[in-house]
Amino acid sequence: MNTLGNIFRVSIFGESHGKWVGVTIDGCPAGIPIKAEDLLPDLERRKAGAAGTTPRKEDDLPVFATGVFNDHTTGAPLTIVFENNNTRSADYEALRATPRPGHADFVLDKKFNGYNDYRGGGHSSGRLTVALVAAGAVAKKVVSPISIKARLIEAGGNTDIETAINTAIAEQDSIGGIVECVATNMPMGLGTPFFDAAESLIAHAVFAVPAIKGIEFGSGFAAAKMKGSLHNDAIIDDKGTTLTNNAGGINGGITNGNDLIFRVAVKPTSSTPKEQQTWNNVSQSVESFTVRGRHDLCIALRVPVVIEAVTAIVLADMTLQNNAYTH
Amino acid sequence: MNTLGNIFRVSIFGESHGKWVGVTIDGCPAGIPIKAEDLLPDLERRKAGAAGTTPRKEDDLPVFATGVFNDHTTGAPLTIVFENNNTRSADYEALRATPRPGHADFVLDKKFNGYNDYRGGGHSSGRLTVALVAAGAVAKKVVSPISIKARLIEAGGNTDIETAINTAIAEQDSIGGIVECVATNMPMGLGTPFFDAAESLIAHAVFAVPAIKGIEFGSGFAAAKMKGSLHNDAIIDDKGTTLTNNAGGINGGITNGNDLIFRVAVKPTSSTPKEQQTWNNVSQSVESFTVRGRHDLCIALRVPVVIEAVTAIVLADMTLQNNAYTH
Amino acid sequence: MNTLGNIFRVSIFGESHGKWVGVTIDGCPAGIPIKAEDLLPDLERRKAGAAGTTPRKEDDLPVFATGVFNDHTTGAPLTIVFENNNTRSADYEALRATPRPGHADFVLDKKFNGYNDYRGGGHSSGRLTVALVAAGAVAKKVVSPISIKARLIEAGGNTDIETAINTAIAEQDSIGGIVECVATNMPMGLGTPFFDAAESLIAHAVFAVPAIKGIEFGSGFAAAKMKGSLHNDAIIDDKGTTLTNNAGGINGGITNGNDLIFRVAVKPTSSTPKEQQTWNNVSQSVESFTVRGRHDLCIALRVPVVIEAVTAIVLADMTLQNNAYTH
Amino acid sequence: MNTLGNIFRVSIFGESHGKWVGVTIDGCPAGIPIKAEDLLPDLERRKAGAAGTTPRKEDDLPVFATGVFNDHTTGAPLTIVFENNNTRSADYEALRATPRPGHADFVLDKKFNGYNDYRGGGHSSGRLTVALVAAGAVAKKVVSPISIKARLIEAGGNTDIETAINTAIAEQDSIGGIVECVATNMPMGLGTPFFDAAESLIAHAVFAVPAIKGIEFGSGFAAAKMKGSLHNDAIIDDKGTTLTNNAGGINGGITNGNDLIFRVAVKPTSSTPKEQQTWNNVSQSVESFTVRGRHDLCIALRVPVVIEAVTAIVLADMTLQNNAYTH
Repeated sequence: MNTLGNIFRVSIFGESHGKWVGVTIDGCPAGIPIKAEDLLPDLERRKAGAAGTTPRKEDDLPVFATGVFNDHTTGAPLTIVFENNNTRSADYEALRATPRPGHADFVLDKKFNGYNDYRGGGHSSGRLTVALVAAGAVAKKVVSPISIKARLIEAGGNTDIETAINTAIAEQDSIGGIVECVATNMPMGLGTPFFDAAESLIAHAVFAVPAIKGIEFGSGFAAAKMKGSLHNDAIIDDKGTTLTNNAGGINGGITNGNDLIFRVAVKPTSSTPKEQQTWNNVSQSVESFTVRGRHDLCIALRVPVVIEAVTAIVLADMTLQNNAYTH
Repeated sequence: MNTLGNIFRVSIFGESHGKWVGVTIDGCPAGIPIKAEDLLPDLERRKAGAAGTTPRKEDDLPVFATGVFNDHTTGAPLTIVFENNNTRSADYEALRATPRPGHADFVLDKKFNGYNDYRGGGHSSGRLTVALVAAGAVAKKVVSPISIKARLIEAGGNTDIETAINTAIAEQDSIGGIVECVATNMPMGLGTPFFDAAESLIAHAVFAVPAIKGIEFGSGFAAAKMKGSLHNDAIIDDKGTTLTNNAGGINGGITNGNDLIFRVAVKPTSSTPKEQQTWNNVSQSVESFTVRGRHDLCIALRVPVVIEAVTAIVLADMTLQNNAYTH
Repeated sequence: MNTLGNIFRVSIFGESHGKWVGVTIDGCPAGIPIKAEDLLPDLERRKAGAAGTTPRKEDDLPVFATGVFNDHTTGAPLTIVFENNNTRSADYEALRATPRPGHADFVLDKKFNGYNDYRGGGHSSGRLTVALVAAGAVAKKVVSPISIKARLIEAGGNTDIETAINTAIAEQDSIGGIVECVATNMPMGLGTPFFDAAESLIAHAVFAVPAIKGIEFGSGFAAAKMKGSLHNDAIIDDKGTTLTNNAGGINGGITNGNDLIFRVAVKPTSSTPKEQQTWNNVSQSVESFTVRGRHDLCIALRVPVVIEAVTAIVLADMTLQNNAYTH
Repeated sequence: MNTLGNIFRVSIFGESHGKWVGVTIDGCPAGIPIKAEDLLPDLERRKAGAAGTTPRKEDDLPVFATGVFNDHTTGAPLTIVFENNNTRSADYEALRATPRPGHADFVLDKKFNGYNDYRGGGHSSGRLTVALVAAGAVAKKVVSPISIKARLIEAGGNTDIETAINTAIAEQDSIGGIVECVATNMPMGLGTPFFDAAESLIAHAVFAVPAIKGIEFGSGFAAAKMKGSLHNDAIIDDKGTTLTNNAGGINGGITNGNDLIFRVAVKPTSSTPKEQQTWNNVSQSVESFTVRGRHDLCIALRVPVVIEAVTAIVLADMTLQNNAYTH
């Protein structure tokens, strides 16, 4: 399913090398002031261009196709599209025989009986995250005054990110990283037991982002080694403020008003410049293989704004859902 | 929302100290042979009784209330209920003034304006997992021949679980742990981009289980420190078998036929016997506090079968969804 | 799917001759005062007993199994169950060879490969409407001050209902009828274009009620013969009051604040005492056949309170959905 | 919500006088051959141009924006867009003060706090049905060999349609009509009790089409006047063939293999050329008023292909859902 959310519903469509990628937000409140330029800062953060990112550059100019009138949302489905104007499909035609290791090429071909658009990963490409970022920029307005900030805190095992990238460039091998996301000005009460736990909805959204391998909230995996008396966050006032925040701002699946904190693990870009082994569908044997095309050496550099976007989308949905009951 | 799944839909209801807890499976295929005793082994695994678990014992006898006829599923909603016959609500009445640290008491009270059934965590209690385990036992039949096995691989930071438990008993403080889940005989093709990625659906379900703080698939957080050339799993035959399994059996959100592997972090039981500080709603001040009632020192001991259950539920839903297109 | 609604979600389960029938309401607001006796008047209206209704009588005592605490809803799933204590399955065993004309026996057997509980229609029985009526009684509290009233306005083609019933009894043949439902104190703004039009959601719910063959809103089928200048409802004040109400209180799928009015066609009870022809699965030929068991001669007599119930459920869902945006 | 369907999900977006209208189909099977010209016959049938239809003409050339590759569906979201190139917004600016009787102008303004795109009905315009027809053309391929045909069987109370239209033109007043839809080659088993009854899903979709006031299946409202012995359809063979088809091809919410038959009531076009009374928001009084702009005198002429489309969409969803269980 390509739709996320129950009330604030975000649907994405498009392919890496197709005509457009885009997003429709259904259930967006009416009256939110919005212009294309409001989306540009987040779109810029997602863009390639820095050291360690792909040389493929897109203009990424958002077009409000529907749902905006006089620079405000109308309450009707809001559709934003982006033209793909910088595609080099020829790069990929040759790859069809050799499904790229770490990519979904092989399984997509099987799942869709060979009908999937295989160019650049097709609909499963990271290119689609431009649509998520656009929707996220709208969602951030919906959840205001909640503020969501994500940043890369470690790359290739190194907390000095610049050094990590330079090493990867020198070694010509891709690296992963860890992104931490913090939402402040959180209200108490978002999330609903049992299956709409705040962690459930956030993790659901986060794992839709390509390359994510893990997520942990608050103390996360470290909690598994802690004792209860140290892990528990003592409540210290009638607002629910806690002395520590091992819970990451969530108790029993419900936000508790403290900062929402989680970290995600980003795997190294599958398209490494290093030579690899893979199956060749034509020769029916394992062969050496080097990925061509233009790729990010450290895709984790571009992930933070995408994590912010999906978090904003989920929080917007939870906020509206909550409104229904606090009317 | 208390429903998980799109086609195979599992809804749970009940409270820790209420009359019943139960589960309805809507969209269960007709003709699956099922008897109450088929559920007992998994229900037994979830039960208390071992060292480190709560002395509260329930009979946990499943009653098929609807949807089963002549020992087979009928295709109509299958409802299984469990009586709560071993509740001591008096233990909890006194606690109302002092919301337990690490628990959802405080936020539930705020979210539901004080109308929530606060006894033993009410609907948010781990007691509800008995319903998940029952539904999981049915789901395991639906996904056969897929086999799902979860086990505790670390407790309190120690891979020798028995020692870890004994230490916790000696120190009278609760501990957490790490549970690993492996599904074998996996078909290729389960999961659908973008938002029904296999990881998204599994993580969604897993975080509904109380006390879970993190999840990682395959190489997980370790991937963030790896290089792409080492992380990528080389495909070595036309079935998609891979030399390594860093992906944990999923590429691009779609199962690739290799074993599905993930680990979850379980926090230490919030109800530790150790004295703690918390807010007292009556005295309006922070006070010392010791949890009473009967609790698990290491709830992680009882988590594996619950993780299996939610995984089975998710895989059943993905399997049926996949059938729709491979008809 | 056995769930109705997006935020206020009503799920039903059970069979005509099984242990229980019941209903779970998920997403019910917390704090609504509720006692079993609040449900009795509507349950009584649905009951058999009057001339023209089945001699099968059930106590229909609702048991609040979950989600109610101290006589108020808790915000957790609210489950209400009814025991089936007056079943005569033997009546139905003999019928298996001869699927009853007008009933779903034949298609249920095929759809569920013979595993369906065929006794008395199983899960497809009108018995399940007791669960709808219970949920409807809760929903009526949620939508207050909206008031919903349905009544039988025609039976067997006759607006004098008593005469119609007596004629049917004399002729020993079942009859149908027309039920009109009016909701007053309606707010403006419920329903959302395009697919959550108020008519779409109400019609969806109404056709789940057994025996319904048609629905029309406002002028309905008569509108097809009218001219636009006569059909249009002139708006006469700034609240949107209209001079006429041909629209039945809905414009463009959105309630306009006028009374919501619709009518439904109820077919004659399929289980007529008259001899009929049907296929015999054993003899593999068409045979004469007379329905046994206890049945309503005019099921339409018992339909109004069920129509009120599903309307209340739909309006509760639309009301909560609307609250999310008018917060 | 602007999405219809659970597995085969159709989402529409756009406004009457906006940039585009369009539709995304998520969950469309991969490998269906499709070209823009496949959609043209249905799009042509929906178009204006005949006597009694609006002089506004659109090219209505479908653009496959996503989800189609090498003239086949890919399994990814299929998006089809249509440019709006023949809009005259000036016609509508003046009307803002006077909400058109019979239209949703008044309620849309209130529901969306004045932020809705009011030009030509905005997102609630019949213009959106072009997107439904496009999706319907795809859905017809999915449900093949089921064949769906709808036609206008009565206009303005007259079964001689040509005469009816000529009279309306002469009288310069709009008229309504009745559309009958028949689906042949129906399989047994589509639709699922309780709330996914075939009638529920079809009625849900049909009432999303502007101007529909009623729907009846099989004998419909006439059933309310019939006796059970005459209404019941005798089953005459082991395939479930029935002697009559009063049920309209559905028993207990499940298709029985006979032709699916239903009729819908279409109200007279609200935009009649006749002078009417309505509220003027500026003068705050009831005033005489004549609709300007270009409109259909008998919108029912253009409805049949739209009814076919939504029926095809619903049947596609039910077919895929059924496949999941008959795998």
